[in-house]
Amino acid sequence: MKVSFSAIGRIRSPFHHTEGMPIQPSGAKDVEGTVEVDAMYAAGLADIEHFSHVTLIYIFHRSEGFDLKIKPFMDDSVHGVFATRAPRRPNPIGISTVALLKRNKNLLLIKGVDVLDGTPLLDIKPYVPEFDVFQVSSVGWLDKKQQQAKTWKSDRRFGSE
Amino acid sequence: MKVSFSAIGRIRSPFHHTEGMPIQPSGAKDVEGTVEVDAMYAAGLADIEHFSHVTLIYIFHRSEGFDLKIKPFMDDSVHGVFATRAPRRPNPIGISTVALLKRNKNLLLIKGVDVLDGTPLLDIKPYVPEFDVFQVSSVGWLDKKQQQAKTWKSDRRFGSE
Repeated sequence: MKVSFSAIGRIRSPFHHTEGMPIQPSGAKDVEGTVEVDAMYAAGLADIEHFSHVTLIYIFHRSEGFDLKIKPFMDDSVHGVFATRAPRRPNPIGISTVALLKRNKNLLLIKGVDVLDGTPLLDIKPYVPEFDVFQVSSVGWLDKKQQQAKTWKSDRRFGSE
Repeated sequence: MKVSFSAIGRIRSPFHHTEGMPIQPSGAKDVEGTVEVDAMYAAGLADIEHFSHVTLIYIFHRSEGFDLKIKPFMDDSVHGVFATRAPRRPNPIGISTVALLKRNKNLLLIKGVDVLDGTPLLDIKPYVPEFDVFQVSSVGWLDKKQQQAKTWKSDRRFGSE
């Protein structure tokens, strides 16, 4: 089954190259950016400003192709791509939860942005602990590596940059 | 910008009709289902069984069209669609985090499934608290309604069913 989506806007960030970019929002928690929602969708943002966090769904637009087994940024072992958050995936879709600081019409000022400037946005959902927070019992190869994600930066492994 | 994605598999659940279906994983926490990943992508699942939770990204395939302002299941007021998790959205993409009980080759046995049987799957990501858990300060119109999501069931408002 094939499906076609159109971007509803763009994410603006200070990151113009994949290299040196934080690899997760936790590594970019003070980095501010802007979500520019196309004017035709602006009415869909009504009341979103009452949520402190939103989840952005977007396209890893600089990602090219994929491998089913990869060595992720934070590990020296090979894992299945679905056991990683790497951008080079069969469907290069990214999700990032960010703090929503303010809405000004079709613009959302956000904090904790870990994506490239110009990233095409597919959807915005309110982040709700009841739906989004789970008590995990294991995090696979990321065990003991979660803290590293805060300081780890992207390299050239996953992009054309 | 347009982008085209292909399903990597299907989600199997006991829900064959939108009516009466839980509207969030929190309302379906004991409901088991199966993720059937197409054989060609099975290698990408290596090591995913070491994560207790995964986030599924999928298509709301029964959803038709969208309105920018809607009255969500759990409220009597109108809100912008991006301030809701309603399935009828400009890009009908859903995200649900589920417990991963077991992997058997290309099949994942999951628990907490809140989607329709046959839902086309776009991506699977490991759920990692460091990346996915945030301390919110407000949840907009969902304040005081989060608990309701556990028992609320879907109605005919959003589907063709």
